[in-house]
Amino acid sequence: MKINIPETGQSRIVIVGGGFAGLALARKMAKSGSQVVLIDKNNYHQFQPLFYQVAMAGLEPSSIVFPFRKLFHKHRNVFFRMAEVTGIAPEKNRIHTSLGICNYDQLVIATGADTNFFGNEEMARLAIPMKSVSEALFLRNTVLDHYEKALSTVDYDARQGYMDIVIVGGGPTGVEVAGAIAEMRKYVLPKDYPELNCEEIDIYLVQGADQLLKGMSEAASRKALDFLTGMGVKVKLSARVTDYDGEYVKINDGTTIRSKKVIWAAGITCPTLPGMPEESKTYGGRLKVDRFSKVAGTGNIYALGDIAYMEEEAWPKGHPQVAQVAIQQANHLAGNLKRAAKDQTLKPFVYKDLGSMATVGRNRAVVDLPRIRFQGAFAWLVWLFVHLFAILGAKNKLFIFLNWVWNYVTYDQSLRLIIRPRMPLREVGKKTE
Amino acid sequence: MKINIPETGQSRIVIVGGGFAGLALARKMAKSGSQVVLIDKNNYHQFQPLFYQVAMAGLEPSSIVFPFRKLFHKHRNVFFRMAEVTGIAPEKNRIHTSLGICNYDQLVIATGADTNFFGNEEMARLAIPMKSVSEALFLRNTVLDHYEKALSTVDYDARQGYMDIVIVGGGPTGVEVAGAIAEMRKYVLPKDYPELNCEEIDIYLVQGADQLLKGMSEAASRKALDFLTGMGVKVKLSARVTDYDGEYVKINDGTTIRSKKVIWAAGITCPTLPGMPEESKTYGGRLKVDRFSKVAGTGNIYALGDIAYMEEEAWPKGHPQVAQVAIQQANHLAGNLKRAAKDQTLKPFVYKDLGSMATVGRNRAVVDLPRIRFQGAFAWLVWLFVHLFAILGAKNKLFIFLNWVWNYVTYDQSLRLIIRPRMPLREVGKKTE
Repeated sequence: MKINIPETGQSRIVIVGGGFAGLALARKMAKSGSQVVLIDKNNYHQFQPLFYQVAMAGLEPSSIVFPFRKLFHKHRNVFFRMAEVTGIAPEKNRIHTSLGICNYDQLVIATGADTNFFGNEEMARLAIPMKSVSEALFLRNTVLDHYEKALSTVDYDARQGYMDIVIVGGGPTGVEVAGAIAEMRKYVLPKDYPELNCEEIDIYLVQGADQLLKGMSEAASRKALDFLTGMGVKVKLSARVTDYDGEYVKINDGTTIRSKKVIWAAGITCPTLPGMPEESKTYGGRLKVDRFSKVAGTGNIYALGDIAYMEEEAWPKGHPQVAQVAIQQANHLAGNLKRAAKDQTLKPFVYKDLGSMATVGRNRAVVDLPRIRFQGAFAWLVWLFVHLFAILGAKNKLFIFLNWVWNYVTYDQSLRLIIRPRMPLREVGKKTE
Repeated sequence: MKINIPETGQSRIVIVGGGFAGLALARKMAKSGSQVVLIDKNNYHQFQPLFYQVAMAGLEPSSIVFPFRKLFHKHRNVFFRMAEVTGIAPEKNRIHTSLGICNYDQLVIATGADTNFFGNEEMARLAIPMKSVSEALFLRNTVLDHYEKALSTVDYDARQGYMDIVIVGGGPTGVEVAGAIAEMRKYVLPKDYPELNCEEIDIYLVQGADQLLKGMSEAASRKALDFLTGMGVKVKLSARVTDYDGEYVKINDGTTIRSKKVIWAAGITCPTLPGMPEESKTYGGRLKVDRFSKVAGTGNIYALGDIAYMEEEAWPKGHPQVAQVAIQQANHLAGNLKRAAKDQTLKPFVYKDLGSMATVGRNRAVVDLPRIRFQGAFAWLVWLFVHLFAILGAKNKLFIFLNWVWNYVTYDQSLRLIIRPRMPLREVGKKTE
């Protein structure tokens, strides 16, 4: 079966994945004269940096995602398809999708990264990842559900299993989740659950390296540790989770923690697409690309963002897998594709590091800019505004801003709802829902 | 096992169901000196009148529901439990719940009504109901998913199956959903799906009676019909769906419609709780109560709202199953319970009909007040403000108001997202989500 997209005689660029890279490229190419096909398994773009706020009931999913179709209302050259890509046949210039075969003249792979459980199958089955807004919602539902269950659990040890939380991974996601839970424990949970002793809630952050926020400056990682420790988070550095059975977490320093919730933010890996040439494959599921984002061993396939592995002089081990790289690579590739169409000389990609930041809680963030580093309340304000302006859509900006103001003033994340879309299987005449 | 709620020596009122009736009663009794136990299967109160806006991507679920725990922050006498009630043992003054046995001194049943499929098992399995926010979200996801699928469906007839919509039931919910879909067809879908011919979308509203909005005035039901017809909805009066197999809808006027979506808003029935005395049971799963809301054949069990069947002089066939009755009964019962505690004479319930209203779309609503009836733009404004002020919580009010202004100005429901909370079963190292 062939995918149902009009053959217009234009050259066709197929972009797989609508994250930061894929979306930026699709927007730049919308008026290029080529036909642009954007394929994603969801019908919306997700703003990853705020997943943790969805998980912690501070924002609604709808505030941090944006429907693709709405973005391309005015661009009749852009065709969005909600589909899974199952394989690539480079020799035939076609991909296989859940909607059928799709031919391309140029293919751009921007499928991003998924959670890496480092081969631990138990962990993959039992720990909760945070790499999609669906997973963030699942985490929110689980956390709330567990505090409801804790109320009905008389046995002290069993109750700890519902109350304690273990977060694995001390990157920005792990730090942000740990900080957000610590704030819920302080401001929200004692009011919601006066019957529970919220001081019994232990929050563990387990980090393999000897510092938090590995990619940032030492000042930033030290300050993040200070902030978290001050908020009562038990940070374990140079520690690894060795075993988890859904009930007990074992750590290689000898500790055993009873917890029904392990949040896994310890690493990423890129899902492989069957059909790519062997010589393009490198560690972490990434695809080797040249300075023009072209995948090794191919003539018309490009890779962008987390899945692309590109070496440049300043980055001999490849770029960090962050949004900035993805967006800059996409914009750069768009420029090169337009240059190629005009037979102009292509330019090699050069990454411009704009810095990085992470937030720990109210008035607590760390910011590393190229020339200056700062932490605390001002850093937190900078973090808020950078993220507010980065997110797509005026309505999203407005609603996130209002939510933040509301939460800041009331010390309350108000979205503590366990909602699951469902069509229950019913027995007729009986209430089964 | 016993439910884990402190025995304080106070008299205990157990309220089952936190809809309009149960919640109103719990709030009134919060400072009564009795221990109040509120049991609901969700951790939030749902504002039913706006379900259809959630289903049609105009509002977020979080805007129209409210977490119970937040409401009772300051009331240490109120204990909320998220649980299912499975049965009642009146002779022992206890109920059975998914969290264990719960004793009561007084029991209040306010479990409301669920969808009535009139014994049609196929319909119960295949049609989409609209009696919870979870079901409304399911409908939203289904509608959006079907338009994505329609794009890839080349065969004309099969594509109609994804595009056409049949709504069964011409009460407020059916009329509101039909109007909202007609507006999406006009303003939103042509922009989102320029590849589809949105004029091919047929919207059918099938009503068993010979008029829409049966409980309202003839002027209102005539005007609602005018509005819908003007918006291109195909209204079939005095018609019944006789058969549905998931693909073809058969109607008793001989029509067959190909549609993968049948929205069922044709009737309600009350789920029965095992253990209630036989003499209390009446049609539609309702429980007979006296003018003091006491269930027939019991001494300390009350029923409120949709599930209560009470006859008074002006309402010889019982009250309509609407929010106003539920709220008034709850407030009245709270008064009587307080009177009983002071050994004062109880007062019989008298329903005060405040009127009813329904909305069809932008600037189109119908309002019946006791002394005056009106339809159109002003009615629509009245509808908006009555619902805005009825909903719980300042934040919900603000966010709904902003959403409505936004949608009104932009002609756009912006929440067209297919989001499902999920923790995918993963194979290690492969992308399965």
